[in-house]
Amino acid sequence: MTSELHRAFSRFLSPAEILALSPELLVDQRRRFTATPDIILQPHTVEAVQNVMRHCFAHRIPVTPQGGNTGLCGAAVAQSGVLLNLAKLDKIRETNPADNSITVEAGAVLQRVQEAAGQAGRFFPLSLASEGSCQIGGNIACNAGGLNVLRYGAMRDLVLGLEVVLPEGTLVSHLQPLHKNTTGYDLRHLFIGSEGTLGVITAATLKLFARAQTTATAWVTLPDIESAVRLLTLTQGSFAERLCSFELVSRFALELSSAFSRLKKPDDGEWHILLELSDSLDSPDLTDRLAEFLYQNGFENSIIAQSEQERRDLWTLRENISASQRHLGTSIKHDIAVPIAAVATFVRECSAALAQKFDGIRIVCFGHLGDGSLHYNTFLPDILSNEAYSYEDAVNDVVYEHVLRHNGTIAAEHGIGIIKNQRLPAVRTPAEIALMRAIKAHLDPHNIMNPGKLLP
Amino acid sequence: MTSELHRAFSRFLSPAEILALSPELLVDQRRRFTATPDIILQPHTVEAVQNVMRHCFAHRIPVTPQGGNTGLCGAAVAQSGVLLNLAKLDKIRETNPADNSITVEAGAVLQRVQEAAGQAGRFFPLSLASEGSCQIGGNIACNAGGLNVLRYGAMRDLVLGLEVVLPEGTLVSHLQPLHKNTTGYDLRHLFIGSEGTLGVITAATLKLFARAQTTATAWVTLPDIESAVRLLTLTQGSFAERLCSFELVSRFALELSSAFSRLKKPDDGEWHILLELSDSLDSPDLTDRLAEFLYQNGFENSIIAQSEQERRDLWTLRENISASQRHLGTSIKHDIAVPIAAVATFVRECSAALAQKFDGIRIVCFGHLGDGSLHYNTFLPDILSNEAYSYEDAVNDVVYEHVLRHNGTIAAEHGIGIIKNQRLPAVRTPAEIALMRAIKAHLDPHNIMNPGKLLP
Repeated sequence: MTSELHRAFSRFLSPAEILALSPELLVDQRRRFTATPDIILQPHTVEAVQNVMRHCFAHRIPVTPQGGNTGLCGAAVAQSGVLLNLAKLDKIRETNPADNSITVEAGAVLQRVQEAAGQAGRFFPLSLASEGSCQIGGNIACNAGGLNVLRYGAMRDLVLGLEVVLPEGTLVSHLQPLHKNTTGYDLRHLFIGSEGTLGVITAATLKLFARAQTTATAWVTLPDIESAVRLLTLTQGSFAERLCSFELVSRFALELSSAFSRLKKPDDGEWHILLELSDSLDSPDLTDRLAEFLYQNGFENSIIAQSEQERRDLWTLRENISASQRHLGTSIKHDIAVPIAAVATFVRECSAALAQKFDGIRIVCFGHLGDGSLHYNTFLPDILSNEAYSYEDAVNDVVYEHVLRHNGTIAAEHGIGIIKNQRLPAVRTPAEIALMRAIKAHLDPHNIMNPGKLLP
Repeated sequence: MTSELHRAFSRFLSPAEILALSPELLVDQRRRFTATPDIILQPHTVEAVQNVMRHCFAHRIPVTPQGGNTGLCGAAVAQSGVLLNLAKLDKIRETNPADNSITVEAGAVLQRVQEAAGQAGRFFPLSLASEGSCQIGGNIACNAGGLNVLRYGAMRDLVLGLEVVLPEGTLVSHLQPLHKNTTGYDLRHLFIGSEGTLGVITAATLKLFARAQTTATAWVTLPDIESAVRLLTLTQGSFAERLCSFELVSRFALELSSAFSRLKKPDDGEWHILLELSDSLDSPDLTDRLAEFLYQNGFENSIIAQSEQERRDLWTLRENISASQRHLGTSIKHDIAVPIAAVATFVRECSAALAQKFDGIRIVCFGHLGDGSLHYNTFLPDILSNEAYSYEDAVNDVVYEHVLRHNGTIAAEHGIGIIKNQRLPAVRTPAEIALMRAIKAHLDPHNIMNPGKLLP
């Protein structure tokens, strides 16, 4: 099969566009899944993507698009056929400051897009821990979230136009910078968050914003989550959209990250908030106003970053939480969100229910409290890594029951992939899943686009 | 037919839910189209909407949802069957300041939603000339734009969750305040902008923002559109997202509105910009900074509103443009957008082409320059009202040719309805229109939802 595929694709791809089956592209970010494609293709042009799709459509060969391979739900793990790596489609095609837009190809690494926006005197707000390697196409395909959603929205809110190769090879291009355009059903939003199951995103026009001229950053230590929610409400009341990040860190998460990062803990305490204000205009008193605000409202266990280095250290403590857990073994991760008013109750009740059912379970709770979005990772004691996943369903049953009780979501910003698709019927109605299937069947009648992902 | 329908619906609707065929609901806002439904229903509950849809689905009766009847493209003009007026589904169900959200029913008038947000200490930014009578359901169904898109986005960007009755009567409800939620294909965005062709929107959860504490408003007179675009770029450079409105008014548009409004013109000149800055925090020097900015950059023909009354008068001049044109006769209207960098060229070239082809044509050009979105209304001389529309295609051919040459859109914020659906193939590819038809056919297999609208 593989050599036959190799011969077939060699007819219209250059040798450099056909890759060896290397582990770094096959093993997923969490080292949980290993892809088993028959071939890895890395097209250098959009036309090559079209040719690949035409061939695969004609021959019913499955295709799994892959960006930076930083996904956490297995959406880019190819089970057979073609693993379609987009890394070489990485041009910054155009920056357009007048329309506050930038047009980039799918393989452009997020950090490069941020930098290109900066060079044009603008700001691209999507920011997440893997920004040095994740790619824009993957960010769009899974509707990535991250640290700045509170102020600027998720990836979905940042896409003005898309260029997509449909399963049968047709190119549909709407790379347009218009902020107002209503001509028929909005198909762009179908592809955003579709995890490679409807077509291959090859480029996008993205929204840009003004750069922050002033930033103020604080670390606040609190006795309970109720206080953190109170701080959120007060901060929004006093600073409105100047608040761009409001991150929650539990005592255990801070201990892990502090040891891993070799940075001392800002303070002891059960819960911590890292919050950041920014202003696109020069605002020399912003830090003083934040300090005064925290003092006046009784949040005395607070540290205000006094230099860029101090600010970066605080952010390192937040961003290293994921990496610092690895030595604990295999975690059963959750990417959930609940309404702000329900966060405290959710955390208290869910933790108690887990502790009761799973003796000695340890929970690393952190995340984007400003969006009600939590990473709620659980570690079972004395369980070997390869055994942990056998408890996944039982742990998930408890967590998701509490999430749904509070009208939350089981997938806030990481997507569905292969680890949650069987849970989709718990959050979407039969009518909705039927419509999703109809859309999929129309665009991809032979089910070649990333089969087995997203849909149950 | 009508009395038979009356008997049938009387079985599950109260007498108050079946209305007489009154002209105010049948004649559209522009007095161009007269609806010819067999019956007008005005359900008082979501269950009643479901019952209506179940009956209509079973009996293949066409249904046209209607909001405030302020649409400009004929999307709510029923040609037969049921005109489904949503005005009595008008509850503000819940305001949720912690999540910055509000849940309202489809028939709630936009201004009431703005007021309810204000009472909760928040701001709902959608704002347009008909806000005193248009309804949220219609705003969502046509993805309304208006005056604050530059800062806050269009209606699409303001919807967190929807409640929809599908054509066969099923209720799909996702009235959720979560700002991050990615669980399968995004169907919400299919209904936003679908103009009643996929189902009946009965309620929505909308995003709220912080209220402005400071506003600064200026009227700037300019010799040409190039200067207006230069002013836009400079204003965004200096005030970033504080700039929330940037409205263009031509000399002719100002003359009409000034006479109609009985307000004197702020200045003489070819082109005018009404711009407004706002800050969600107290910012006492904002007006001074705006004045200084305009002076420093050489925009000396400027008036800064010194009181709320002066500010309101300037806005009245802008908002009355539409109403003030009516005595000129019937206009062939355009609701277009082009990239900012192309606006000046577009206006100059398109006006010249129209003048050459249609002797004596008059153009009322105004709109939301900050979004590249223009209302470009044309009046043919010595043409009786009922004759004007016979020139519509010929005028549109010229205008749309210029719009498309600059990668613009023929429908920025008013929708497609029945006046532009035959133009859809000019802006959407066959593959896209085929997908739209497949979605429509799946949800509405008997084509009962607003037949003849939106799709060509």
